[in-house]
Amino acid sequence: MILIKNTTIITQNPQREIIEKGGLVIEKDAIEAIGQSKEIERQYGRRAEKIINGQNKVVLPGLINAHGHLAMTLLRGFADDLSLEDWWFKYVYPAESRFTAKHVYWGSLLAMLEMVKSGTTCFADFYYHQDQVAKAAHQIGLRGVLGCGVLDAPTFYFKTAAEALKKSRSIIEKWANDDLIKVSLAPHMLRTVSLKTYQQCKKLAQEHKLLLMTHLSETRTEVDFCLKKYGRRPVEVLAEANILDQRTLLAHACWLTKREIKILARAGASIAHCPISNMKLASGIMPLSAMLKAGVNVSLGTDSPCSNNNLDMFEEMKTAALVHKVHQLDPTLAKAQTILDMATINGAKALGLIKEIGSLERGKKADLIMLGFNQPHLVPVHNFVSHLVYAARGSDVETVIINGRMVMEKRKIKRINQDEVFNKVRKFAIF
Amino acid sequence: MILIKNTTIITQNPQREIIEKGGLVIEKDAIEAIGQSKEIERQYGRRAEKIINGQNKVVLPGLINAHGHLAMTLLRGFADDLSLEDWWFKYVYPAESRFTAKHVYWGSLLAMLEMVKSGTTCFADFYYHQDQVAKAAHQIGLRGVLGCGVLDAPTFYFKTAAEALKKSRSIIEKWANDDLIKVSLAPHMLRTVSLKTYQQCKKLAQEHKLLLMTHLSETRTEVDFCLKKYGRRPVEVLAEANILDQRTLLAHACWLTKREIKILARAGASIAHCPISNMKLASGIMPLSAMLKAGVNVSLGTDSPCSNNNLDMFEEMKTAALVHKVHQLDPTLAKAQTILDMATINGAKALGLIKEIGSLERGKKADLIMLGFNQPHLVPVHNFVSHLVYAARGSDVETVIINGRMVMEKRKIKRINQDEVFNKVRKFAIF
Repeated sequence: MILIKNTTIITQNPQREIIEKGGLVIEKDAIEAIGQSKEIERQYGRRAEKIINGQNKVVLPGLINAHGHLAMTLLRGFADDLSLEDWWFKYVYPAESRFTAKHVYWGSLLAMLEMVKSGTTCFADFYYHQDQVAKAAHQIGLRGVLGCGVLDAPTFYFKTAAEALKKSRSIIEKWANDDLIKVSLAPHMLRTVSLKTYQQCKKLAQEHKLLLMTHLSETRTEVDFCLKKYGRRPVEVLAEANILDQRTLLAHACWLTKREIKILARAGASIAHCPISNMKLASGIMPLSAMLKAGVNVSLGTDSPCSNNNLDMFEEMKTAALVHKVHQLDPTLAKAQTILDMATINGAKALGLIKEIGSLERGKKADLIMLGFNQPHLVPVHNFVSHLVYAARGSDVETVIINGRMVMEKRKIKRINQDEVFNKVRKFAIF
Repeated sequence: MILIKNTTIITQNPQREIIEKGGLVIEKDAIEAIGQSKEIERQYGRRAEKIINGQNKVVLPGLINAHGHLAMTLLRGFADDLSLEDWWFKYVYPAESRFTAKHVYWGSLLAMLEMVKSGTTCFADFYYHQDQVAKAAHQIGLRGVLGCGVLDAPTFYFKTAAEALKKSRSIIEKWANDDLIKVSLAPHMLRTVSLKTYQQCKKLAQEHKLLLMTHLSETRTEVDFCLKKYGRRPVEVLAEANILDQRTLLAHACWLTKREIKILARAGASIAHCPISNMKLASGIMPLSAMLKAGVNVSLGTDSPCSNNNLDMFEEMKTAALVHKVHQLDPTLAKAQTILDMATINGAKALGLIKEIGSLERGKKADLIMLGFNQPHLVPVHNFVSHLVYAARGSDVETVIINGRMVMEKRKIKRINQDEVFNKVRKFAIF
């Protein structure tokens, strides 16, 4: 039993309650109690094996990174400031083609180190060799949803969509009922995946009640391709093929019409908004306000560090708030609380984990982070949520608990030798 | 004599040279030598009083924050997500009106702690009670250009422009020939300052060969005001009043016509670009590409933490790159090197300090920072400049040397008790 006392707790519960001088108790993998510190200490103080003093610190749900490609950390800074064509065809694709299972393992572990150190406790990964990603996640103790990439074109992991689906099936079976890992189907995008393959992915996802994640309308070129091939826009095409429902997560969604937003809202599909990647690649600006108004669930993701170039969800939150304000010339849009929701509770909903994570409530899994607020950029505090979204950075995260386990304490990762990872990564990242 | 050995040096010299396995020698306040580590060690190794091993670290010129209002750290997170009117009239202005010299002193010292800890070695401050700011800067050891605010409306520091000018004169005299502090004139903006007052400021600046800094075309409302009052646009009005020359620094400049950009380029005036503030307040997006093409010198600033909400110039660099790429839907704009220039050498030029700072070259002042690169988000390195602009954060700065003096070492500020500042600030920041 871990007891955190005398701290400020941003619960993200339905009332978005903030408990000052709060306390929280973790028993095994779950939150046993949450409330006023004095009361919590009185009730659980004697039984706690570990007591953490949270004075001048802020506790909140671990951040949820709803879209990424972890192993691509190996390509961070490898290709910047290029047109999308040069970026992909001249740099990223040729380098990625040389990836092996070991690249995926070490690259993912590196990404996980960074994610934990910047306060992410649950990630969605769209990639290949997901066995390797699952292994790394268990070693560090991170929660994740593994998207098994499927394309109708060869990758370094498979030659055909049939092979990709076969490999996905084996990974689904292997990681069923795991405490940290959920598997999902990840058809790539409409340009590289036929509707038939999309439907095979959806069928497999439905059989196992799994999430389907895919890229959608990231660029105008992609929408043009779809209009030319299908005569309709991407959301319309996926909706008619019965791909969209509450277990669908669409990354990017920069170029949507009002009609497409309505279809998404009606289907209950979620969005992984990746503002930094969309800005860096100059893909476009997602119509956030219209989507929120229509009731679409919008979560937040970093995309790969190859188009970001880090995995700091605090930075992603701030950038999300900023870009929508200036894009619509309205500073009252994308308010701090709206943005914090995207990075926590909306992410949990998007990944089908709303009952487990995304807020600090009795009975939910103990996935939480603690930030040190005794720092020049966080003193004084007029508004905790404002500080989290607009002033804090991932490096302010001191302690990370996932599934009730201490994964990082005082910025030290518990079960991974960081230097060993760096040495391996330096060896594998030569292209 | 301080010797830094075995490190990567981003010189920002005219060739934008990067020296891997480099070495650098500091003698008194200046850079004595820079080159290959082996050669530097051989030549200076015996004489050095302190040798710093820079392995897995990166040394670059200290960042230059070309626009801010330091004491407003007291109001960080005090007013967010509001219309500009509500933000100013309901929150910021009433709170600021209650500021005293002590607020300015402690608020500025807090800002300086944050700036040093995030790698800024020189700031421009637009505020009042500049004696207090100078005192704080000397205590911590930070270089700064103090802008003495002048308005034709009363502030908490003066009642009339005449009084403001009188106070400015006394501050100019007091800090003449200082090693860290330069004074400048800071008429507020065209909405609050008459042309007559602008000209008085410029005259005083010219007498003492000082910079004049002012706000320009931050919002469309401001441009409309100017059009209504003067029948011409802000840059045209200032140019005709002979305010614009190489010793003029204009903050924001979001709403410029092509003609205005030409006038700025011809005058040799510099710009302090504040992308985060402009985004957060939804003021607009500065036409960076057109300005760079015309040859305008563009530097970078955070503006006040009340509209940012931090002073991290690494964050400012990244956001600058991102917003211009997506705004013009062109990922090749605002390249990493262009952005790093804005935060270093262009800032030095903007502040009239190009001979002293902004690059690491023999004979220049020793204002430099060292970042630790042995971190998950900075391994592996394909491109140092990319990492500095797109992946690094202020918290990666380990060591800060200003004017040859060690101001921060291993993230510990040398001459200021941080906790004392926090306690004072918490007392003074109640509004």
